[in-house]
Amino acid sequence: MPELSFFTDELSVVNLGAERFSDDLQEQGVKAVHLDWAPPAGGSPELIAALAKLDSDVIDKANQVAVNKYLEGTPYLVDYALAKDVIPGMRKNLILHAGPPIEWERMCGPMRGAIMGVLIYEGFASTPEEAEKVAASGEIDFEPCHDHDTVGPMAGVVSSNMVVQCFENRAFGNKAFCPVPEGMGGKLLRYGAYNPEVVENLKWMATEFREVMHAALQLSDGIDARSLQFQALHMGDEGHNRNKAGTSMLLRALAPLMFEVDLPREQVIKAFEFINGNDGYFLSVSMPSSKVCLDPAMGVPNSTMVTAMARNGVDFGIRISALGDQWFTGPAQMVIGLLFPGFTDEDANPDMGDSCITETAGIGGFALSGAPAIIQLVGGTASEGVAISKRMYEITIAENMNYSQPVLNFRGSPTGIDIRKVIETNVLPAIDTGSVHKLAGVGQIGAGLTTPPIDCFEKAVIAFAEAFDPNASQ
Amino acid sequence: MPELSFFTDELSVVNLGAERFSDDLQEQGVKAVHLDWAPPAGGSPELIAALAKLDSDVIDKANQVAVNKYLEGTPYLVDYALAKDVIPGMRKNLILHAGPPIEWERMCGPMRGAIMGVLIYEGFASTPEEAEKVAASGEIDFEPCHDHDTVGPMAGVVSSNMVVQCFENRAFGNKAFCPVPEGMGGKLLRYGAYNPEVVENLKWMATEFREVMHAALQLSDGIDARSLQFQALHMGDEGHNRNKAGTSMLLRALAPLMFEVDLPREQVIKAFEFINGNDGYFLSVSMPSSKVCLDPAMGVPNSTMVTAMARNGVDFGIRISALGDQWFTGPAQMVIGLLFPGFTDEDANPDMGDSCITETAGIGGFALSGAPAIIQLVGGTASEGVAISKRMYEITIAENMNYSQPVLNFRGSPTGIDIRKVIETNVLPAIDTGSVHKLAGVGQIGAGLTTPPIDCFEKAVIAFAEAFDPNASQ
Repeated sequence: MPELSFFTDELSVVNLGAERFSDDLQEQGVKAVHLDWAPPAGGSPELIAALAKLDSDVIDKANQVAVNKYLEGTPYLVDYALAKDVIPGMRKNLILHAGPPIEWERMCGPMRGAIMGVLIYEGFASTPEEAEKVAASGEIDFEPCHDHDTVGPMAGVVSSNMVVQCFENRAFGNKAFCPVPEGMGGKLLRYGAYNPEVVENLKWMATEFREVMHAALQLSDGIDARSLQFQALHMGDEGHNRNKAGTSMLLRALAPLMFEVDLPREQVIKAFEFINGNDGYFLSVSMPSSKVCLDPAMGVPNSTMVTAMARNGVDFGIRISALGDQWFTGPAQMVIGLLFPGFTDEDANPDMGDSCITETAGIGGFALSGAPAIIQLVGGTASEGVAISKRMYEITIAENMNYSQPVLNFRGSPTGIDIRKVIETNVLPAIDTGSVHKLAGVGQIGAGLTTPPIDCFEKAVIAFAEAFDPNASQ
Repeated sequence: MPELSFFTDELSVVNLGAERFSDDLQEQGVKAVHLDWAPPAGGSPELIAALAKLDSDVIDKANQVAVNKYLEGTPYLVDYALAKDVIPGMRKNLILHAGPPIEWERMCGPMRGAIMGVLIYEGFASTPEEAEKVAASGEIDFEPCHDHDTVGPMAGVVSSNMVVQCFENRAFGNKAFCPVPEGMGGKLLRYGAYNPEVVENLKWMATEFREVMHAALQLSDGIDARSLQFQALHMGDEGHNRNKAGTSMLLRALAPLMFEVDLPREQVIKAFEFINGNDGYFLSVSMPSSKVCLDPAMGVPNSTMVTAMARNGVDFGIRISALGDQWFTGPAQMVIGLLFPGFTDEDANPDMGDSCITETAGIGGFALSGAPAIIQLVGGTASEGVAISKRMYEITIAENMNYSQPVLNFRGSPTGIDIRKVIETNVLPAIDTGSVHKLAGVGQIGAGLTTPPIDCFEKAVIAFAEAFDPNASQ
């Protein structure tokens, strides 16, 4: 198991792997956590020098504009609908996927499997073999979710007739979409499974389930997702890997609506229990809530704020505000943590999915202090989660009081990654995430921590420095 | 505002009052917390000496027997019923109240108000003036909830026709009961309100609400309260003052049952929303769950374990295992913390209610580490909550892995207060609780921390030493 090397510290060394330091109760607290340091990409002094030439006041001001646009966002869950009816640019022969753009030939196993699954679901093929041929034929377009106001966990595959959850940022009027979580376990489309049960489940979700949820949402003015997330962060969630409280609060908001839905009782109960049976359901609220609030922060001239991080299982990509929808990529990293019994490092796919939009929004790994259960799942201690959260303040622009951290005495979560600070400090964003099997359809095999590759930030800094124009208007 | 004086520490002083030390992020952690020390009751060296004469091996063994009986308990919520139909010994002219026994003349304002409310509800009187006369007439018997397998929050008043939640300890077959929480706000019976709205609400709860909840519970095998509490303690609850997660998990268990209830939809929705609108609802699960599991630990010869702590707003009482249902009392203390705007120390009633059965069971103040929001409500810091939880290990017999503390790396909660350890260490049990106005019906005016008076423990030790019999069989 490789060592975790997020950042430097003055005192001593902790591995998140087998030699992990297991501090006992007496050491619970900040001072107990110290992580190994390795200068990413050799420290990149040229990049720091390049940045130093730019007018930092202009950039600081632009970053405030960008981060405020994010902070002012008000995300609401407003509907459940078919992708083709709501996602801009959605069409029959288009399949969306997680992360930055990637062609079929370079895709990893789980993403290919998921695409085969939706090709069968959409009627392009009736067997996996046929689906593979269709996928490679050039007949199908593959584009990132992010280019269509969408985010998808893991493979993140979305096709026309899939049901998605619809979000609205009422402060800015923009929208975002996210596929409905299929449930728990390994045999899920998002892990690349394409067997008949997966396809049947997609059909049920797009019909009976959607019918109930659409009817329920019509009875409300929309569900305030920021309020649910705010509460969940005070209840052991961090909004990425742990979403049990968010799911519970969502169910408390949904149940009274679902009681009133005028559809057969069994259909309503099945829909309720589908959500109730998946403590991770709320990830599909936290992700699009993050996306719909971050999107208005795109395109602020001279802002170095990261507006998206996403990975397709091969490449990790980031976007920065000043450079709009351009991706800056590097190789997706491995997830370092604990694997479920029976799996080894050899089984793991590199980091995958759009879910790190949560970290981009200042939750997930950035709010780990509030989710000891996740750090325990990864094999660490509560104090390690606190240390990771605290370190993220070094690379961020603002503190989000809507997403506060109880264990840090309710300090606002570190928000708005500044690529300059990442380069200057060598501190990479902390992402806590699931580890997925590299073969299609096996599913999650563990959980742990990872980071983007430094390459994304180096490339972004170079492109930013070239485009920098102190006279650009905001 | 008086200083908090739970216990000693080597380093420095923290007040929970106005001069409270407000440590910042860097100091978040164990080392930051230091509390003032004042020897309760002068240290009681005679008592320690008295204890030293007893055979500690015999007592230790008895305590293991007692605490194991508690730990083996499996509490289930099984029904909603009228008090007269389920509570042993309940009768028309009996009113139960919180805490140890107390006569009408010595009762505090809020308890008197609550009794006047139920006298009107039960038809003994039609005006508050009449009710007061009936209460003082001798016609009505007043007995502690605890003597009738019941626990009640605040005034804890229960009369024949009130609805109660019914719990079963399936490991031992015993039962416990708790009044249904009336909702949020100040105008509640448990705070001593007796106006017509309070009485109307009691009627609705005993009829339409009970009908729905009884029907829902009949559709299940009972709801596993320990499992809900286990989860809630990992979600920001401590089970006494903070019960938002427990309430959420309870609603997730109830909703599927309530969907199936064959009663008018509006009636079912109103019942669901009644619970959904009260984040503190789960206190009325955590309290009887604690009681129903602690009761089998009563009566173990030579055990010094505390099996109940309760207060009636005037006296604080404890029971210890070896001495069965005998109460050892002292004056109820004030609650030290923050008052809501507009109230002063002069407004506060001494500590009241059976709710500290949760601390007796190792949650509440004993599990404060997991509930930073409560410590914030009290005006303290997250690290103070951690320190208080940790200190409780000094006075307890066991660690309960069913109730583990995430921030303490999931260490089992300190469980089973040993009166010997309280006397020897001068550490008093920490109780985090609401502060109630001393006038009937004003309601909660703040929240904070308190302890039992040392007197309870001194009296219990003396009585225990007299009754000690190393040859008694268990």
